[in-house]
Amino acid sequence: MKTIDLMHGAGGAIFAELLGKTLTAYTHNNAGGIGLEALDDGAVIPINGSNIVLTTDSHVVRPLFFPGGDIGRIAVCGTANDLAMMGAKPIALTCAMIIEEGFEIPQLERIVKSMDEALGECGASIVTGDTKVLERGALDGIAINTAGIGITEKPVRDCGLKPGDVIISSGTLGDHGLAILTAREGFDLGEQIHSDVAPVWNIVENAMAAGDVHAMKDPTRGGFSNAINEMAEKSGVQVRIREEDLPVRRSVASASELLGINPLDVANEGKVIMGVAANDAEEILAAIRRSKYGQDAAIIGYVVEGSSVIMETSIGGERFIEPPIGDPVPRVC
Amino acid sequence: MKTIDLMHGAGGAIFAELLGKTLTAYTHNNAGGIGLEALDDGAVIPINGSNIVLTTDSHVVRPLFFPGGDIGRIAVCGTANDLAMMGAKPIALTCAMIIEEGFEIPQLERIVKSMDEALGECGASIVTGDTKVLERGALDGIAINTAGIGITEKPVRDCGLKPGDVIISSGTLGDHGLAILTAREGFDLGEQIHSDVAPVWNIVENAMAAGDVHAMKDPTRGGFSNAINEMAEKSGVQVRIREEDLPVRRSVASASELLGINPLDVANEGKVIMGVAANDAEEILAAIRRSKYGQDAAIIGYVVEGSSVIMETSIGGERFIEPPIGDPVPRVC
Ligand SMILES: Nc1ncnc2c1ncn2[C@@H]1O[C@H](COP(=O)(O)OP(=O)(O)OP(=O)(O)O)[C@@H](O)[C@H]1O
Ligand SMILES: Nc1ncnc2c1ncn2[C@@H]1O[C@H](COP(=O)(O)OP(=O)(O)OP(=O)(O)O)[C@@H](O)[C@H]1O
Ligand SMILES: [Mg+2]
Ligand SMILES: [Mg+2]
Ligand SMILES: [Mg+2]
Ligand SMILES: [Mg+2]
Ligand SMILES: [Mg+2]
Ligand SMILES: [Mg+2]
Repeated sequence: MKTIDLMHGAGGAIFAELLGKTLTAYTHNNAGGIGLEALDDGAVIPINGSNIVLTTDSHVVRPLFFPGGDIGRIAVCGTANDLAMMGAKPIALTCAMIIEEGFEIPQLERIVKSMDEALGECGASIVTGDTKVLERGALDGIAINTAGIGITEKPVRDCGLKPGDVIISSGTLGDHGLAILTAREGFDLGEQIHSDVAPVWNIVENAMAAGDVHAMKDPTRGGFSNAINEMAEKSGVQVRIREEDLPVRRSVASASELLGINPLDVANEGKVIMGVAANDAEEILAAIRRSKYGQDAAIIGYVVEGSSVIMETSIGGERFIEPPIGDPVPRVC
Repeated sequence: MKTIDLMHGAGGAIFAELLGKTLTAYTHNNAGGIGLEALDDGAVIPINGSNIVLTTDSHVVRPLFFPGGDIGRIAVCGTANDLAMMGAKPIALTCAMIIEEGFEIPQLERIVKSMDEALGECGASIVTGDTKVLERGALDGIAINTAGIGITEKPVRDCGLKPGDVIISSGTLGDHGLAILTAREGFDLGEQIHSDVAPVWNIVENAMAAGDVHAMKDPTRGGFSNAINEMAEKSGVQVRIREEDLPVRRSVASASELLGINPLDVANEGKVIMGVAANDAEEILAAIRRSKYGQDAAIIGYVVEGSSVIMETSIGGERFIEPPIGDPVPRVC
């Protein structure tokens, strides 16, 4: 009997197989615009001339409160960011909580407060929800699902990279995954690593106003490695990344080395990877750097004809950046 | 320390307190139309002249497969029906699954297939989703959240009852709750009770075309008793129900008696309770009866000035119909 294992939840290659064979086996999979078949960050549904974007994410992160954020902040930002990845301004969110019997109400209050603060930053509202309670032992604490709708004039796909495009990262990579991992292990590195969990619509809006954005993806589970491979593969191009231009915090790099983890393989929760028209790249970069949460943005590579993702290493070599098979950090979001 | 208990998940009075004090404590709770403050079956968001309706429900029902349905069918119908309760045609759904390590993939395939069939009946599509996997022991099997959007010309509220209105039930009451309970207990009643889980948009569409529908609610957790009390209270009216006109299957009535349960207090998953203009009541009733899943519809009461819900009993007496405090059937949906 084939069963689900933890790798199926990692957003990598093993998940992709389950997704393709089982989870997307719907004949009713498209409501007129961009549907499930695109496997993009969200779907687009044209309604009376408006492009409504719809997306969802569940959150099961442990610990519930971690340096730089908590499950509530992730639940709001995660969904708002998937909307932003489609080029959409987040408008309204749902909040569905599944709670274990015995969960402390003051914790719940803290989570709701954090969600509300994140909503304020996103400019979105929670307009409807649901609550289920499971008997003690049937769920570890709490799981929060949010779904969201946004609106966009021009949807941005993850498959829109073109040869000649420039790749931008809106900031440092690996922060969320390493923050969770080090918090969980009680790891003392001298310096605390903070999650980057934050809404990125402001970055996206400024970038789109400054020039042509061809493709976007938020590097969540599976990290930068997974996101950039998906973008390259879906676009039918090769992406070349310059190792020395990749922004990674010193603390994140040291912790990664100690833990034997690649910071490019772990989740980020407040970053965008963009492919933009080369002519507009400097202006877009400047616009992102002016944005809240965009100060560390960098041009990290470029697009050519071909396939796969290549790292041009600091010492002049080349190697593949592969999508991770599983996730080195389970329950990261 | 105040903690969550199972009563908080029952959709009754204890849940209402948690909801009011903690779960809806957002300052960002409305995106322009009908927001969280209304606590209706869904929210309405006006976008460029269209009324977009948004709603969500998580599903944790046990057993996963039960007489008349399964968790997949409920997950699709539950959300489609909350859209219909707002007067909205279901258009697109999200599907977010949280799965326990070790869950059997063939079961997952069966669930997806059932969801697809229900989508076909609803005329809606699943356009985006999410999957999280929890380590063994962190979740009992699977939980499925769906969120959905629909569109309506004229939103219908749950608070729109007016004195003089007639109350219609689209069919028999108590079927789902008793099906789950008897299936779970391995209860042999000679006759199998089947869940009523089904999409009701067709009923709603036909009813709205036949006359003035003032208020609607699907009597899910907390059953008819909870739904009708919410409608009466929010509308500021008294509702009077005639016991002898309430449609309850014989098998459901007998099982209820044996189990000491009120069939009006348990969940239905394919029913609508409507308040309609008296002049249109017969035409609306006929339109519902012509609809798939509407054959057993009945006029069950009427609205007067005042407050609370009164049962006019078969023997000529009167008593209150109270909203249940908790749910006699946990994990019913
Ligand atoms: N259970 C599911 N049913 C339908 N579609 C799914 C399901 N799980 C994932 N998908 C789809 O698969 C694609 C990848 O999902 P994934 O959750 O990895 O994307 P993401 O939300 O961008 O990443 P993350 O969840 O790490 O933030 C998306 O297009 C999503 O809609
Ligand atoms: N965790 C939550 N956050 C925000 N709003 C919530 C939450 N839980 C419930 N609500 C809101 O409370 C109201 C009642 O929710 P409830 O889930 O009981 O309604 P329902 O979906 O019609 O019933 P059921 O879930 O039994 O099908 C709805 O307006 C819903 O949007
Ligand atoms: Mg994404
Ligand atoms: Mg996401
Ligand atoms: Mg609900
Ligand atoms: Mg409802
Ligand atoms: Mg519901
Ligand atoms: Mg996701």
